[in-house]
Amino acid sequence: MLRQVKDPGVDCDFELHVSSQVDTVLLQATKINMTSQKSDSAMSPKITGELLRQLRQAMKNCKYFSEPIQAYIVPSGDAHQSEYIAPCDCRREFICGFNGSAGTAIITEQHAAMWTDGRYFLQASQQMDNNWTLMKMGLKETPSQEDWLISILPENSKVGVDPWIIAADQWKNMSHALTSAGHSLVAVQDNLIDVVWMDRPERPSTQLRHLGLDYTGVSWQDKIIALRAKMTKRKVTWFVATALDEIAWLFNLRGADIEYNPVFFAYAIVGMNSIRLFVDLKRLSDPTLRDHLQLDSPCKPEMSIHTYPYESVFTELQAICAAHSPKDKVWISDKASCALTQVIPKAHRTPIPYTPLCLAKAVKNSTEIQGMKMAHIKDAAALCELFAWLEKEIPKGTVTEISAADKAEELRSQQKDFVGLSFPTISSVGPNGAIIHYRPLPETNRTLSLNEVYLIDSGAQYVDGTTDVTRTSHFGTPSAYEKECFTYVLKGHIAVSAAVFPNGTKGHLLDSFARAALWESGLDYLHGTGHGVGCFLNVHEGPCGISYKTFADEPLEAGMIVSDEPGYYEDGSFGIRIENVVLVVPAKPKYNYRNRGSLTFEPLTLVPIQVKMMNTELLSQKERDWVNEYHRNCLEVVGAELERQGRKAGLEWLIRETQPIV
Amino acid sequence: MLRQVKDPGVDCDFELHVSSQVDTVLLQATKINMTSQKSDSAMSPKITGELLRQLRQAMKNCKYFSEPIQAYIVPSGDAHQSEYIAPCDCRREFICGFNGSAGTAIITEQHAAMWTDGRYFLQASQQMDNNWTLMKMGLKETPSQEDWLISILPENSKVGVDPWIIAADQWKNMSHALTSAGHSLVAVQDNLIDVVWMDRPERPSTQLRHLGLDYTGVSWQDKIIALRAKMTKRKVTWFVATALDEIAWLFNLRGADIEYNPVFFAYAIVGMNSIRLFVDLKRLSDPTLRDHLQLDSPCKPEMSIHTYPYESVFTELQAICAAHSPKDKVWISDKASCALTQVIPKAHRTPIPYTPLCLAKAVKNSTEIQGMKMAHIKDAAALCELFAWLEKEIPKGTVTEISAADKAEELRSQQKDFVGLSFPTISSVGPNGAIIHYRPLPETNRTLSLNEVYLIDSGAQYVDGTTDVTRTSHFGTPSAYEKECFTYVLKGHIAVSAAVFPNGTKGHLLDSFARAALWESGLDYLHGTGHGVGCFLNVHEGPCGISYKTFADEPLEAGMIVSDEPGYYEDGSFGIRIENVVLVVPAKPKYNYRNRGSLTFEPLTLVPIQVKMMNTELLSQKERDWVNEYHRNCLEVVGAELERQGRKAGLEWLIRETQPIV
Repeated sequence: MLRQVKDPGVDCDFELHVSSQVDTVLLQATKINMTSQKSDSAMSPKITGELLRQLRQAMKNCKYFSEPIQAYIVPSGDAHQSEYIAPCDCRREFICGFNGSAGTAIITEQHAAMWTDGRYFLQASQQMDNNWTLMKMGLKETPSQEDWLISILPENSKVGVDPWIIAADQWKNMSHALTSAGHSLVAVQDNLIDVVWMDRPERPSTQLRHLGLDYTGVSWQDKIIALRAKMTKRKVTWFVATALDEIAWLFNLRGADIEYNPVFFAYAIVGMNSIRLFVDLKRLSDPTLRDHLQLDSPCKPEMSIHTYPYESVFTELQAICAAHSPKDKVWISDKASCALTQVIPKAHRTPIPYTPLCLAKAVKNSTEIQGMKMAHIKDAAALCELFAWLEKEIPKGTVTEISAADKAEELRSQQKDFVGLSFPTISSVGPNGAIIHYRPLPETNRTLSLNEVYLIDSGAQYVDGTTDVTRTSHFGTPSAYEKECFTYVLKGHIAVSAAVFPNGTKGHLLDSFARAALWESGLDYLHGTGHGVGCFLNVHEGPCGISYKTFADEPLEAGMIVSDEPGYYEDGSFGIRIENVVLVVPAKPKYNYRNRGSLTFEPLTLVPIQVKMMNTELLSQKERDWVNEYHRNCLEVVGAELERQGRKAGLEWLIRETQPIV
Repeated sequence: MLRQVKDPGVDCDFELHVSSQVDTVLLQATKINMTSQKSDSAMSPKITGELLRQLRQAMKNCKYFSEPIQAYIVPSGDAHQSEYIAPCDCRREFICGFNGSAGTAIITEQHAAMWTDGRYFLQASQQMDNNWTLMKMGLKETPSQEDWLISILPENSKVGVDPWIIAADQWKNMSHALTSAGHSLVAVQDNLIDVVWMDRPERPSTQLRHLGLDYTGVSWQDKIIALRAKMTKRKVTWFVATALDEIAWLFNLRGADIEYNPVFFAYAIVGMNSIRLFVDLKRLSDPTLRDHLQLDSPCKPEMSIHTYPYESVFTELQAICAAHSPKDKVWISDKASCALTQVIPKAHRTPIPYTPLCLAKAVKNSTEIQGMKMAHIKDAAALCELFAWLEKEIPKGTVTEISAADKAEELRSQQKDFVGLSFPTISSVGPNGAIIHYRPLPETNRTLSLNEVYLIDSGAQYVDGTTDVTRTSHFGTPSAYEKECFTYVLKGHIAVSAAVFPNGTKGHLLDSFARAALWESGLDYLHGTGHGVGCFLNVHEGPCGISYKTFADEPLEAGMIVSDEPGYYEDGSFGIRIENVVLVVPAKPKYNYRNRGSLTFEPLTLVPIQVKMMNTELLSQKERDWVNEYHRNCLEVVGAELERQGRKAGLEWLIRETQPIV
């Protein structure tokens, strides 16, 4: 699935294309994350007059601050800078009605404005009532949040924001802009949206699941040891973990607090002799879980986990910083919340773009790789069944985008160790396929037919791994143009998948390989080519990726897992994307320059790519060989699984779809 | 020629490769610029004891500052951040003896240390006496300049530097580090090296040459109008030009103050109603020059150039800033000197990575393109003659790297409007070819033979254009391995040259195309693939380029001119590089996605690429077609020129070398 991340520094897919020649701004992005989108009411505006009145009252209420504030900023996002957020954190949606994944609301005494990007102009205008001004980001006439605030605020204004929701670097920029215009940015400890949000959902506190060595390959104790070794090497005495997937990975725990992401709300602080875990303590009552964390059995003091309530991370970090030498260095992600970052005195603070956990998590060990392979085989078996079913059912005219997505979920859920989907299925027919971030809704739901291209981008969480695969198919006869475009996309997919490159190469250097065939014909796609994939964790993870946008990606290493998903989108007509999850593996080319070693990719996804959609004359012999070898492998590996599961329809389909190209 | 630039932010070729897997540091760079290297004494250490004694005395002499300084920093470079510098600016070389292109000397009361990178460890150790400590940059044990200073300075020390030589951003970093350790960085207005440099050469003040519309295509008046239009658009009221090539380009003037670069020492300040040119006023006595600049003829006041002595830029800029509204915005390059940058009050200052002149200069107009084409045809004619001569002379055993370079210069100098070389010729045989920044010296000079690969990277300044071309040849029978490597490099060269890409694409996205064939065989080269080329200006210019290092390059546009120069270097054995200068031109592929338009390259360099070095079996049909079409074009265009010039040997060679591959 295409990635979208909030931090523009790491976001490879939400892109602002400025063509210097024509001086126009093409704004394009790749995926939507409507965390709490309700299909029935998605497109009717929310009535916000009363809410805004209450919020403005709170902005003057000295219970929350020493002096009233003149403006209040409501960013998207939670205190962990999660890509997907829990319902209790959908504060921007609550106040303005707009439920897209990206947007910032600002409320002043007189105005209410919401900034979002080109993906969401239409949706936001439909979901917000006329108390709100839609600020269309990327258009020349649209002011930045800072400029707008400065233009409308009275002198010496105070602008409030919840310091837990805003990242440290964003705070810095906003504060700098406001200060130099005579205003100030103030941290409001009580979230003012929560003050007026009467029926705000509880923060989820789902059951925790612990994973044994057969799934993780490395115990949490050994992960702590490895982390401390890195800290020692860099003379760092404390590490504050704020990203939910890093904490889940570190302790070999999983939760279900956020849909699609098997994580749980927590913080952790690891010192050289102590481990602190901040989490709703009620969740730690299960004896096997307590045993997993060794909470009751005496062990070496430096390996004892001290548990604290989730909310106490602030005071505890404060206490740590107060008690220790000013020479102690503290590692914290530069994307952590402003609130937590600022607890650490500047002299101690060492913000890092990627934490040691993020880096360690990205390089999968052999157990995780084995698990990911197993998950992908099961996932492929389910998809073979799906495609066989689609072939049978589509001619009846009864399959819709939604029912196809539901069928995919049903078939996946029959697979062993299935936990849930890894993201909302993108199931799109014909023109809907050209909407890159499409998600079928009742009012847009199209019926699959023999006349239109069908794109399905879907994936699941299994206890042994996470999947993410896109296939584009035609169940009748594709047009020559559809086949031509599909073939260019396939050539790009193969160019990345088969690329050999030196150790230490960053993913962004491979992005143009995915585009060369499209470019040669004057085509392109306006999203990145790949994202990191977690192992029974978030389907999008750092620090690696493949994108033309050169964010601070880390070099690819053997054991990393990324997606390879070039596409082509013809507005109003069709969309094509071919996505495999691929594993970075050592390559053994003829030479070995400076003993650097080489890498290449091994596809983990093993679902046939529809030959009917290919114009095989446009493929080189090497590309045809790649397709045949890939299909041979699909047949061998997934065929055995389908046979084992007794899934005849899927197996027949697989056999037919993996016939070699000649 | 390969580019080396001082500013690491823009330098695509001086690279620090850190392989995350093996944790070793490979330090590699591409070109040397021994501005004042004397072949006779290059490798004997300079005796510096007395000089250091005098310098240390100056460091205590309160004539130069209110309080003595404890350390003095001597960077490489001049006040314009030029890539090549004049002899009077070789202060770091003067004080320590080391004459490589990159290095910073720091002298304290007790110590003298010089930082340089892996290219220069050997050379620096040979050129410096034992008063100096060589600081090997890139090695783990080597401290940074800041860390070293902090470790040895007594408390509350003052570290001096000439603010004209240090760029604003470098000052900021150094000052920050020193301040946070309780020291301070102070600007010493009198350069202390100049104080002790008795026979320091004069600043050059060569004759200025003005170029008419037949060479420049646009009058300086129209360039001023275009600049002011950009300033108006961005609400900027002043622009300070500090880069010598930008000033030369703006006024359609050329000088010869710096070897290889047809520039002259000057500054310019352009306001909305005034133009100030700061230059040695003696240079403006020539009546035709005065006429060109309209210095005496009354013209519209806003188009009158007011001339000032070179040195008065500081006081004049001060006066401007004092006289104008604090809302006036001043544009200055972020690479300008600290001294000049800090004259502008912070509220006025708008530092920019690429000035409007740099951007405008990069996009050549049709007259410049025509001139560049002419220059490359003449240059190719000279090189055809050279290769014909080499073929004849090499078997006699009398041709050396130096004599071949001399012959190339002689033949070029016979061409119309020849001015000089555009950089020191890299003429290298066998193992010398693997030294990427090689320049032949008497002690390294090898004889060309029938047994070794010969690489020549050379170029010239003509009044109508600048050239830069690398050819790699074998005059006997190349080995299969040499041919194989050459062919991979050629495949990379073609992949870039023939690439079609969307308007707005940045050059760094094309870099991997140049490497794919090498990577596939486990090979690579540790430098960038291309740099911008000036038109009768610097052979290296911004803001575009092609490199795996993602510096802030500007998108490629039709009319830009860059080099395409992949290579392969086998240490101790041979070097291969194939370099053409190429023009960005519109491409017309089958489709036109979102009306963005497409671009490709047209080679300006028209010198045959040696077929003998190719393993044509490794080439695809498309690549063979490219070679044949390129050679057909060389034969047609350069053949006509050689015929016109009556150069039979060259013509015969050209005809032979452009036979189609079958």
